[in-house]
Amino acid sequence: VDGGGLLSVPGVCGAAVATGVKPSGDLDLAIVDLGRPVTAAGVFTTNELCAAPVTVCRERLAQDPRARAVVINSGNANAMTGEQGVLDARAMLERVESHLEGPALVLSTGIIGVPLPIARVLEGIDRAAPSVCPGSGDQVAQAILTTDTCTKTAAVEVDLPGEGDDPPRTITVGGMAKGSGMIHPDMATMLAIIATDAPMAPQLARDMLVAAVDRSFHTITVDGDTSTNDAVLLLAGTGQPAGAQLEVRAGSQRARILASAITTVATDLALEIVRDGEGATRVARITVHSARTRTEARAVASAIARSSLVKTALAGADPNWGRILSAAATAGVGLDADRLCLTLGGIEVFAGGLPHRLDEPTRRSLDAAFAAPEVRIDLELGLGQDQATMYTTDLTKGYVEINSEYTT
Amino acid sequence: VDGGGLLSVPGVCGAAVATGVKPSGDLDLAIVDLGRPVTAAGVFTTNELCAAPVTVCRERLAQDPRARAVVINSGNANAMTGEQGVLDARAMLERVESHLEGPALVLSTGIIGVPLPIARVLEGIDRAAPSVCPGSGDQVAQAILTTDTCTKTAAVEVDLPGEGDDPPRTITVGGMAKGSGMIHPDMATMLAIIATDAPMAPQLARDMLVAAVDRSFHTITVDGDTSTNDAVLLLAGTGQPAGAQLEVRAGSQRARILASAITTVATDLALEIVRDGEGATRVARITVHSARTRTEARAVASAIARSSLVKTALAGADPNWGRILSAAATAGVGLDADRLCLTLGGIEVFAGGLPHRLDEPTRRSLDAAFAAPEVRIDLELGLGQDQATMYTTDLTKGYVEINSEYTT
Repeated sequence: VDGGGLLSVPGVCGAAVATGVKPSGDLDLAIVDLGRPVTAAGVFTTNELCAAPVTVCRERLAQDPRARAVVINSGNANAMTGEQGVLDARAMLERVESHLEGPALVLSTGIIGVPLPIARVLEGIDRAAPSVCPGSGDQVAQAILTTDTCTKTAAVEVDLPGEGDDPPRTITVGGMAKGSGMIHPDMATMLAIIATDAPMAPQLARDMLVAAVDRSFHTITVDGDTSTNDAVLLLAGTGQPAGAQLEVRAGSQRARILASAITTVATDLALEIVRDGEGATRVARITVHSARTRTEARAVASAIARSSLVKTALAGADPNWGRILSAAATAGVGLDADRLCLTLGGIEVFAGGLPHRLDEPTRRSLDAAFAAPEVRIDLELGLGQDQATMYTTDLTKGYVEINSEYTT
Repeated sequence: VDGGGLLSVPGVCGAAVATGVKPSGDLDLAIVDLGRPVTAAGVFTTNELCAAPVTVCRERLAQDPRARAVVINSGNANAMTGEQGVLDARAMLERVESHLEGPALVLSTGIIGVPLPIARVLEGIDRAAPSVCPGSGDQVAQAILTTDTCTKTAAVEVDLPGEGDDPPRTITVGGMAKGSGMIHPDMATMLAIIATDAPMAPQLARDMLVAAVDRSFHTITVDGDTSTNDAVLLLAGTGQPAGAQLEVRAGSQRARILASAITTVATDLALEIVRDGEGATRVARITVHSARTRTEARAVASAIARSSLVKTALAGADPNWGRILSAAATAGVGLDADRLCLTLGGIEVFAGGLPHRLDEPTRRSLDAAFAAPEVRIDLELGLGQDQATMYTTDLTKGYVEINSEYTT
């Protein structure tokens, strides 16, 4: 268990440069190099006006679910840039591939609707590609940021048991991410790249990634929006010799352990994003219990997590349970007031259709729980066996300031 | 056309008193008296934890779609108050009916989860009911407010053509409303009562109300939430002698004229609510054109209207078109970037898949349009013939202040 992130995974190298696309002169282009083509899977934004790099990555992965390298530029999202944007994204890939033989992928984040300064970007690729090395994890994690206030990285080591002739092995799962709103408009987007040296087939990689994203990035909300550029990539089998036989097979114990490790890394990265949410001073962990289905649990948790009134109550450290129940009741899952039980910071406040009358010490504990940096909200629906968790930030004047005072 | 509101409709009387439920000592209980039972229809919140008065009104209208009187209390929503809340709401009705013979209805707005101080409320009814009179419109409109900064009233007079033996007539439609967020949590809710002296059958009244609400109250959003207490009532046939024969028939020209007048009053009231939105400094009118269906047009308009990023851009008077298109693309209606045309304050900014390059005078006009108190956003989808309009407020530090600094 190491904080080294994506480049702590065996076989992963990188490089980062400043191309001048960010007016600040900060690092704004990174290349991740895996040495040779490995299994690649991606989950992309559902926004219908997805950016050119998302279109191009989807095309590439549909043709060949492998990647040797990933290029990421920040400062310009190459979104709403028409056909030229697609040509620019392809030009980035071709330039990377001219240096690092094998299929590449591309991610972008930054301002929307401004043509990509492609000459600067290509020149940056020409400088970065020859200098990829194992020790550049911090710069690579830095180069993909926009309004983020800190880099986001996570890594775990897990032991895979022996299987047949193959002895037990220790493998690594590591990743990096950026994001500071699920979208922060012109300078936003959530991006993540996770790698593991455990080799596996494309379908298994895709299944593991979809499951991990569902339990991690899909459980966080800052402002309830979805960017044109959101993307999460999984790269599997890095650092293995070309002819290596080890493969993690679907349904095996190794697959279960690996899936859990990937979910752990994805969840770590997702929580780092929500904690760095724009203007956020507090994070709430909202768990909805005893729902009929996980989908219904998620719908209720999401209604609470997205409510402006719940989020402003969090900003005010106000254990305003009426807002929480009222938001829950908009999810359309058929709540029964008499079966609900709402617990805030471990203190039951509403059950059997009625609020508890809290004595003064209990009320003080409740206030203290809501003033903590991490607030727990637990709602029992009393309808079934399923549950789901969502994380949200408070809605503060800082959020309004960041988003209203940015000028196009 | 008169600003007199609900009590400008012939046959509508009222009274308002302070019961002490509002700690400020302001007016907090109103009775509207129609002199004898008239046709009544209601549209109520879809929130699953609806308040006791909503439950009781629904019951009453299902049994008998008529009302002689409506009692409204503010300062306590009688929501999440269990079985006692329902008993209290019924007790309010019985007390009104003991003074004013005939069926009554009840609406409440105010704090959630606190038992209704029923003795004070009943005592208030005892004082208000005997004093109903035609000149009390201002006090009645005042008594239903919570965080509102002003009363909301509207009225129109229209001429109904002669029909058969019946000569042309002039009728009045008038109403009052309260609301300052679609919900403003503990002290919130949208309530409206509209009356007309045009008599009609319960089914027609209900159809007209549903259509009017769909085009008015359902087109406004302040914070995207739905209160436990939201309710709109239509009372039809006030001020008519008991045996009067005139009736507006479904499908007639009179019905079309009347429906349009009711929609006008409802829209006026809805816009008064959105302009008084919590912390709002600016209102945006978002019209989505050339959608496949009205439902799809509404879905896109709503996605824009609810986006925190669009709402903070409005607060900053920033014509940030990327946020508008990105929000539109989350509605799930299948947008085609090449067919979109986005116009802000009458200035086209994006068409054919690409942003326009605006010259400096045009950019200054665009900035000025976004700095106005009312901003127009028009989005052509290029997919069909239908359209829909939504109104939204800006998301300001004032909104956060109001909602985070309120303490339970």
